[in-house]
Amino acid sequence: MSWVPGAAGSPFGIDNLPYGIFDHGDQPRGGVAIGEYVLDLAPIADVFEAPTLNPFLAQGRAAWREVRARITELLTDEAHRDQLTLFPQNEVTMHQPFDVADYVDFYASEHHASNLGRFLRPNEPPLLPNWKHLPVGYHGRAGTIVASGTPVVRPQGQRKADDYGPSQRLDIEVEVGFVVGTPSQQGSRATVDSFEDHVFGIVLVNDWSARDLQAWEGRPLGPFLAKSFATSISSWVVPLDALQDAKLPKHTQDPEPLPYLQGENNASYEIDLELKLNGTPVSRPRFRDLYWTPAQMLAHLTVNGASLRTGDLFASGTVSGPTREECGSFYELSLGGTDPLTLPDGSERTFLHDGDEVTITATAPGPNGVRIGFGEVSGTIQPAQ
Amino acid sequence: MSWVPGAAGSPFGIDNLPYGIFDHGDQPRGGVAIGEYVLDLAPIADVFEAPTLNPFLAQGRAAWREVRARITELLTDEAHRDQLTLFPQNEVTMHQPFDVADYVDFYASEHHASNLGRFLRPNEPPLLPNWKHLPVGYHGRAGTIVASGTPVVRPQGQRKADDYGPSQRLDIEVEVGFVVGTPSQQGSRATVDSFEDHVFGIVLVNDWSARDLQAWEGRPLGPFLAKSFATSISSWVVPLDALQDAKLPKHTQDPEPLPYLQGENNASYEIDLELKLNGTPVSRPRFRDLYWTPAQMLAHLTVNGASLRTGDLFASGTVSGPTREECGSFYELSLGGTDPLTLPDGSERTFLHDGDEVTITATAPGPNGVRIGFGEVSGTIQPAQ
Repeated sequence: MSWVPGAAGSPFGIDNLPYGIFDHGDQPRGGVAIGEYVLDLAPIADVFEAPTLNPFLAQGRAAWREVRARITELLTDEAHRDQLTLFPQNEVTMHQPFDVADYVDFYASEHHASNLGRFLRPNEPPLLPNWKHLPVGYHGRAGTIVASGTPVVRPQGQRKADDYGPSQRLDIEVEVGFVVGTPSQQGSRATVDSFEDHVFGIVLVNDWSARDLQAWEGRPLGPFLAKSFATSISSWVVPLDALQDAKLPKHTQDPEPLPYLQGENNASYEIDLELKLNGTPVSRPRFRDLYWTPAQMLAHLTVNGASLRTGDLFASGTVSGPTREECGSFYELSLGGTDPLTLPDGSERTFLHDGDEVTITATAPGPNGVRIGFGEVSGTIQPAQ
Repeated sequence: MSWVPGAAGSPFGIDNLPYGIFDHGDQPRGGVAIGEYVLDLAPIADVFEAPTLNPFLAQGRAAWREVRARITELLTDEAHRDQLTLFPQNEVTMHQPFDVADYVDFYASEHHASNLGRFLRPNEPPLLPNWKHLPVGYHGRAGTIVASGTPVVRPQGQRKADDYGPSQRLDIEVEVGFVVGTPSQQGSRATVDSFEDHVFGIVLVNDWSARDLQAWEGRPLGPFLAKSFATSISSWVVPLDALQDAKLPKHTQDPEPLPYLQGENNASYEIDLELKLNGTPVSRPRFRDLYWTPAQMLAHLTVNGASLRTGDLFASGTVSGPTREECGSFYELSLGGTDPLTLPDGSERTFLHDGDEVTITATAPGPNGVRIGFGEVSGTIQPAQ
């Protein structure tokens, strides 16, 4: 149990210890959330003096565990109290926690892929023939990943032939992202069972999407400008070591995947997400409903010999469940834009209006009935420029 | 005229001055090619002591011009001869010239897109409806871009449902790449006419492609593992300032593109490429045959507010011309894999064999009838691991 007041029972309790980059009116540096405070890590290890977690991520799993054990001891044994610097979270500014090397986005929810298939290809089977054989994915733009809270300017572009202007179908995607610490060699493969060696932790991701741009530009090379204007990530990276109680039993699939997509530790995680629009909860997607696991995504991403770099981020794709109230995009929540949601102020939404604020939060089970919190990823839509 | 012996008339003459990163058994640093030599730039400006051109690229257009003027003076006025360090190119090791931030690949050749459309969608019009309205593009993997000469391991993956193994249709794409120096703000747009403010120079690109993996994985999100195992770039970055005589008259298109894809300086370049397989020339694609210009690619890439970073690379997509001998991929050169090429040793090729060496070279017109050389991008296929 932590001596920090209010830490017990908090989503940022002693069993979580997520890492982020903060400043207190001075230099951005590494910190750990504990209760309603941030522990300043710069005095504890030089690697946290950097304005990004990348140097720490690069140290690898043994170092991650050592540092976690050290922080746990510092925050548990009151003898260390006077040596440490804690700032209230509401007095610090949070930054993007790590520099993103390459960003890959998957499409791992069968419910989401089927919903989109039904909207977009009504005369074909909802899933394409490859979908149950491999985790479909593509590369996104690493340079436009932004910290939670960064305003998002409504993108402009081609909505159809000779139809140019601000997107009229601006949407979000509720996703979970995996942060790579330990790199791999080009020409080699990372296995399903090496997942916890390569991946340090998890962030929440909002993959903002302009559906009108996407429908027009997307053939044959996939989404491009519909996604590349902004992708928001949460401030705190929750280490996999905090999610041992959230691990689910070994995942099974039908048809049985190829051997490179199998492993003894092919587990998904129980992570319960919530999507809020202007403060009102509109959906509760569950990560466990995904068809493909994060370890399978990692194995697939590297099966061709592609290398991993420290700071690579791969995201799950939209997390959607079997019911409408568990869908992770407004496209699905509004049934393809045909059936608006009604908000408490009486206004209706199919897609996002200027000024709308979108917030995604999540928790996962921790030890002894506590919940592990992921904080939030939020963003507000600004008018097109 | 340069005092360096052999520089006059060379593709690396005084009118070219391409930048690269080299070492002479010591620290990698910046250099300029002149004739058969490399001029060591580290003693000339601190910015070239870095093992990457990125700090120089970040300085912007005024600095690029100042440095070019200075180097031109040093290599022209023999009074400077004794202050400079020149190494024979065959005594140095060349490195990847810059760290790639985001990598975008376009699809700007009408001939290439039509050829692929005919092979892949024989019952539809060869061009998709969006193709003449916007330069179709997608994001690639920046972390697997490699220096010319780096061996390329044949990728493995899913060739079809339950058909796993080394790619049997390993191909190349002859491309021209544009290197961004000056960044832009997220939420703003770079115009067609700002092309020379943002883009520093040009590299040759070989976009290795596994056609069997691509055909299976590609719907609906586009190419992923079929491309992400390796992309090779040339050692020398030719500055746009060296290509003023290669600029073509203002480009016209039918249908007329939207205003954001127009500009007074919407010119393409005359760049003549050559593709060699194991030393034998097999194709001579011309960059001028592309439908979309590089300035249009830049404007499109940022029309949604996506920012540019120093080190961003965007490539043209396969450069193919109207005849078979001008196509930039083996897929096209072998008519979709149906009509092999015969090499001088009597062997036949549709796609690449292990041990095959692929080299792309190019030149462009310079002042007074000289040719501006781009050097080469080469790679040899190693067996799957």
